[in-house]
Amino acid sequence: MAKKKLNVAMIGYGFMGRAHSNAYCKVNHFFDLEYQPVLKVACARNAEQIKTFADNWGYESTETDWRKVIERKDVDAIDICTPNNLHKDIAIAAAEAGKMILCEKPLAMNGPEGEEMCKAVEKAGVANTVWYNYRRVPAVTLAKQLIDEGRLGKIFHYRAVFLQDWTISAELPQGGQGLWRLDAAAAGSGVTGDLLAHCIDTAIWLNGSMKDVSAMTETFIKERVHTATGQKQAVGIDDACAFLARFKNGSLATFESTRYARGHKALYTFEINGEHASIQWDLHDLHRLNYFDHRDDSIVRGWRSVHVTDGDMPYMDKWWVPGLQIGYEHSFVHQVADFLDNVAKGKPTAPTFRDALETQHICDAVLKSAKTGSWEQVPS
Amino acid sequence: MAKKKLNVAMIGYGFMGRAHSNAYCKVNHFFDLEYQPVLKVACARNAEQIKTFADNWGYESTETDWRKVIERKDVDAIDICTPNNLHKDIAIAAAEAGKMILCEKPLAMNGPEGEEMCKAVEKAGVANTVWYNYRRVPAVTLAKQLIDEGRLGKIFHYRAVFLQDWTISAELPQGGQGLWRLDAAAAGSGVTGDLLAHCIDTAIWLNGSMKDVSAMTETFIKERVHTATGQKQAVGIDDACAFLARFKNGSLATFESTRYARGHKALYTFEINGEHASIQWDLHDLHRLNYFDHRDDSIVRGWRSVHVTDGDMPYMDKWWVPGLQIGYEHSFVHQVADFLDNVAKGKPTAPTFRDALETQHICDAVLKSAKTGSWEQVPS
Amino acid sequence: MAKKKLNVAMIGYGFMGRAHSNAYCKVNHFFDLEYQPVLKVACARNAEQIKTFADNWGYESTETDWRKVIERKDVDAIDICTPNNLHKDIAIAAAEAGKMILCEKPLAMNGPEGEEMCKAVEKAGVANTVWYNYRRVPAVTLAKQLIDEGRLGKIFHYRAVFLQDWTISAELPQGGQGLWRLDAAAAGSGVTGDLLAHCIDTAIWLNGSMKDVSAMTETFIKERVHTATGQKQAVGIDDACAFLARFKNGSLATFESTRYARGHKALYTFEINGEHASIQWDLHDLHRLNYFDHRDDSIVRGWRSVHVTDGDMPYMDKWWVPGLQIGYEHSFVHQVADFLDNVAKGKPTAPTFRDALETQHICDAVLKSAKTGSWEQVPS
Amino acid sequence: MAKKKLNVAMIGYGFMGRAHSNAYCKVNHFFDLEYQPVLKVACARNAEQIKTFADNWGYESTETDWRKVIERKDVDAIDICTPNNLHKDIAIAAAEAGKMILCEKPLAMNGPEGEEMCKAVEKAGVANTVWYNYRRVPAVTLAKQLIDEGRLGKIFHYRAVFLQDWTISAELPQGGQGLWRLDAAAAGSGVTGDLLAHCIDTAIWLNGSMKDVSAMTETFIKERVHTATGQKQAVGIDDACAFLARFKNGSLATFESTRYARGHKALYTFEINGEHASIQWDLHDLHRLNYFDHRDDSIVRGWRSVHVTDGDMPYMDKWWVPGLQIGYEHSFVHQVADFLDNVAKGKPTAPTFRDALETQHICDAVLKSAKTGSWEQVPS
Repeated sequence: MAKKKLNVAMIGYGFMGRAHSNAYCKVNHFFDLEYQPVLKVACARNAEQIKTFADNWGYESTETDWRKVIERKDVDAIDICTPNNLHKDIAIAAAEAGKMILCEKPLAMNGPEGEEMCKAVEKAGVANTVWYNYRRVPAVTLAKQLIDEGRLGKIFHYRAVFLQDWTISAELPQGGQGLWRLDAAAAGSGVTGDLLAHCIDTAIWLNGSMKDVSAMTETFIKERVHTATGQKQAVGIDDACAFLARFKNGSLATFESTRYARGHKALYTFEINGEHASIQWDLHDLHRLNYFDHRDDSIVRGWRSVHVTDGDMPYMDKWWVPGLQIGYEHSFVHQVADFLDNVAKGKPTAPTFRDALETQHICDAVLKSAKTGSWEQVPS
Repeated sequence: MAKKKLNVAMIGYGFMGRAHSNAYCKVNHFFDLEYQPVLKVACARNAEQIKTFADNWGYESTETDWRKVIERKDVDAIDICTPNNLHKDIAIAAAEAGKMILCEKPLAMNGPEGEEMCKAVEKAGVANTVWYNYRRVPAVTLAKQLIDEGRLGKIFHYRAVFLQDWTISAELPQGGQGLWRLDAAAAGSGVTGDLLAHCIDTAIWLNGSMKDVSAMTETFIKERVHTATGQKQAVGIDDACAFLARFKNGSLATFESTRYARGHKALYTFEINGEHASIQWDLHDLHRLNYFDHRDDSIVRGWRSVHVTDGDMPYMDKWWVPGLQIGYEHSFVHQVADFLDNVAKGKPTAPTFRDALETQHICDAVLKSAKTGSWEQVPS
Repeated sequence: MAKKKLNVAMIGYGFMGRAHSNAYCKVNHFFDLEYQPVLKVACARNAEQIKTFADNWGYESTETDWRKVIERKDVDAIDICTPNNLHKDIAIAAAEAGKMILCEKPLAMNGPEGEEMCKAVEKAGVANTVWYNYRRVPAVTLAKQLIDEGRLGKIFHYRAVFLQDWTISAELPQGGQGLWRLDAAAAGSGVTGDLLAHCIDTAIWLNGSMKDVSAMTETFIKERVHTATGQKQAVGIDDACAFLARFKNGSLATFESTRYARGHKALYTFEINGEHASIQWDLHDLHRLNYFDHRDDSIVRGWRSVHVTDGDMPYMDKWWVPGLQIGYEHSFVHQVADFLDNVAKGKPTAPTFRDALETQHICDAVLKSAKTGSWEQVPS
Repeated sequence: MAKKKLNVAMIGYGFMGRAHSNAYCKVNHFFDLEYQPVLKVACARNAEQIKTFADNWGYESTETDWRKVIERKDVDAIDICTPNNLHKDIAIAAAEAGKMILCEKPLAMNGPEGEEMCKAVEKAGVANTVWYNYRRVPAVTLAKQLIDEGRLGKIFHYRAVFLQDWTISAELPQGGQGLWRLDAAAAGSGVTGDLLAHCIDTAIWLNGSMKDVSAMTETFIKERVHTATGQKQAVGIDDACAFLARFKNGSLATFESTRYARGHKALYTFEINGEHASIQWDLHDLHRLNYFDHRDDSIVRGWRSVHVTDGDMPYMDKWWVPGLQIGYEHSFVHQVADFLDNVAKGKPTAPTFRDALETQHICDAVLKSAKTGSWEQVPS
């Protein structure tokens, strides 16, 4: 049976542009879906670079002005892969034009921006989702399933870190392709929006809403050359951020993120401790889930290293055979698959803009607490 | 610049048919190559099933007789993904028709068959390679690089196992889709050709040729229902095989494979111990390489867990960023990339049929030793 | 050569009484020291129980009143293994009597008590030490050595947790042998003084003094039967405590401790991230140290698992051969060995009461912050 | 209650002399036993060295001729810690004198010697045991318990290695204190008797008797200076040995040992795969047992890392609290405890000489097979 076409416009062509394009190309080979994405147009200001990108991935055309993309009749969905400071304008314009939107995370530069975006998509009634891709790493999805089944019982503790070490050198500039994440004007914040946002999205998905937070941030390298000016400029982002939190379910949490943790490339880990059982996960070995169940016979009780590659585990019936792992890129394929499936069924795809707004609010509270030195309530 | 087309015919549509098709679809998105594979035709006896497979992957046409495929003028390369008992006839016919050949492993049912196949491709002068894909898992390729750089010094020991547990149930039949590996008529041997062949291919690549072997095999479940007849029949394959070996470089080795090792899905591990350094690898965490270097400062000397995801590691500049792992399927993408690149340069792609014949000879010696109870020389 | 005798009086006979007695019995078998401890007297209120304890360990006599012990002329050193609420009175009396003192941790119920104790021992000029035994786990001592050698460079981050799960059941009473740790009157605080005190002691030893902290605490089970009354009483201790901290060297830290982390028996871990290198340690595998050095050749760079069992590693020349691990109890033997050696040399044995007072002050600041909801300065 | 005295004579004062003496000193502090060992006499040819040893450990007297020790009326038990070539004569003389015997492993230089020793102790009716201490590492004892409870079901595979790297240097001499293990005249064999004997003892305890073996050995360094002569002499021991085996219960096995496995200090590991469950253990983390149970719920099935430190695990009620590990030396304490308890009850302490003879026979078969190149039956 012929697939229905869903015409995608990609805005941006960096790391995430590649990750999403790969997902669009791959999804129908592995998932049996009513819809098939068509790579209609790729857009970026640099005409030559976007042409190269489009050719490589098979986009049918290119644009250099994102407003043109939104005006196009042959586009069903807009994929926003730009720096964070452009998310709001593009998303609102896209919503007003009735386009579906798949927006990179974090949703916005801050909560108020995010609120505007939510209103826009909700008013327009367009399908929308935010690329918090780690929810769809099979081991993480499995964690959600175990929690929903009640296996952990009452939750006491949540802890997460996202540790990197790639900005330790003072020679690294801020701004430009790949390095806009060090430029507060483009990124909004540093590790809080970039890394902790992931940790927070997973946490509220697994453990519910947060009540309040107490945070600290630090910028270890105070000045870096800006690629736009060639001059040393004050660094506006947070290099590191840690915070304490209380969840509404009564559990306590610690969160920490930094780009100065020597030895960790992208070590996102979380652990959740319940009355009966606990769960750990680690992005560096994303195909494994550690699980401890106190109800096991005491003499053989221990942390189980579950190799999440079997057909009865989330998404894994689509891939290879037990023992053969998938990787980072597959989380995006899963999100596309779910999005297409939900479009066919008229259902939302979590995390929606509204879901992602909660993360945005927490990031805001965290950054505020780091400034005030006080506990800050998370707006509900 | 427009890519040159390389028209591929796929014979077979099982697990490996999917793995290779995915590699053909993906390779040009990540590798900058002169050639681009075109999925020209897919072939299998069952017309309906091959049509479904072809539609899913975008093959332009289908055939139900592999001889027709080989006669087609619009086919440049034949990819053999059939059960082992068909490799020889297809490969020889393909070679005689001047087609390039990418053949699934093991090369053949046995050494004499393999010898005929080598002669055919060498006489025809066609490009040929065998899908011993694990050579191109980046961590394994890195192991090869470290050894070639001389970091290990004189080698003393090699040990490898390939442990699975999926055939422990006596209810599992032999024969048919997915289960032809339990049928000696289709597979030739059991774990020896299926799993140990991988271990041996890696071993001779990393550590050179073997001298002699002493082996034992076992068939734990003596009879299984055959899907072709519905009757219980003697099981002709080896469920488990272990052997001792001596390499020509003076090192000692142990190899073991089984499908009765409860708890292991596809645990292929190898370790190599040299005078100065040692290396370990494990398919269940294929993105890591363990490395020990005795020349390290003694108080901080230990096994290093190297997360093989950085851009200066084999193949990894093509994928994501440090810390983000790739998976099993990528090893096939790498082999296609190397094959296409070598075709452009007129160079062979290891392991060639001739390289794979050495593995076949070792498998034969292993199976012979298991029968005779004596050490058997590996023919050189 | 005959050893000099150092007559020890043990006050208390619980878990720590055993651990210390074992250390006194063992130390001269493995360490070549001028002094030999003599188990002179054991003291506890229950005459029968202390007799059994004394017989088991070879104490020459018993007492039921600790004041009698301090009056004895044949006692050189007092080992305080009582609940925390008795530390101060015993220590001050012992100091005034000119006895050396080995006091269990935490030093006192709070900072002011600790200050009095410091003044007493310093005025009396008696040798004194506090049993923060983890400093002398060889892997931890090695960590200190690596840091002191400057291998890590500038420090960015410190993180430590001490996770247990033994008080999750609401049926557990407070008070009595082994359970006085749940009774605020005897223990002073919960996990803060019991577990975080260890984390803090190690941290300030490895990373210097702290500036300020922001903490939260929780008591998950609000009421427990008290063994003294048989009645349900409010639980006064903290079941869990987490805090953020800034060190004076500019590094950021997170600390967390709980007895509600299902799956962890006594998981004390710390990690320290420096500019050039990082270190991890874990009490559950106390004989290993993980070390990452960014200066390693990039393609073989990874966390090294150092098996701290070689003769050139701290204390390990005294024990077995490489590969053969020691355990928890040996940390106490090491502290006794260092104490005896320092007594012979007239040198102090860290952590002294004064060193331990710093930890006490931090615990106080942590508990205060948890109440005020504000960042609290650590008194210097 | 006063303990009964059991007077021990120690012959030898090397590594094992220390390990056993420590066990004798410690055992009654932790185990409630009828008997208490008394360190009566220590014996070695060098009067000065044995005096130092005796003083250190508290032996009441010394001898320089082991025959004198056996003649002494005040000695109940002889502990043989000499090089292997003296085991037989001492043991037989001790048995004839009616002494209990605790003999270091391997029992003898070879099977015929061992047979004589067995006959002697059995004729004399004296208590006897061989120090295959690893049986009493709690995790290993727990493995035995799990197997005896039938948790694994039918056994398919057993594999063990004992890997070291301390003799790689060609500069190391043979002979003398600590290095008699490289001298065939003193040791009998190399890694086979030293290391594989441990693996075999555990294996037959856990998995029953062996049927036949096929082995290979290698001596990588052909000549080493002998400390007795100062001259280079041919090395008579095996540096490495690997063998295949079949157990009587139908399971297959591989064993390997070497002193040339760079990166491994004393890596004794075993794994046993059964129909329902599997077990792994590793001497480098001897306080853990890995356990996989196929009957676990499939989505949370994985290898469990059991931290063997709880009171309901073998021997662990005698030590500390959950989470706090013991070490290598404790295995000897456990063997002494069991021996003393069995003496009180008139029961034998496994492994007896007779039990250890089976290991000796297997070692002989292994060494013979390595010479003949054939499978060799294990005499039953």
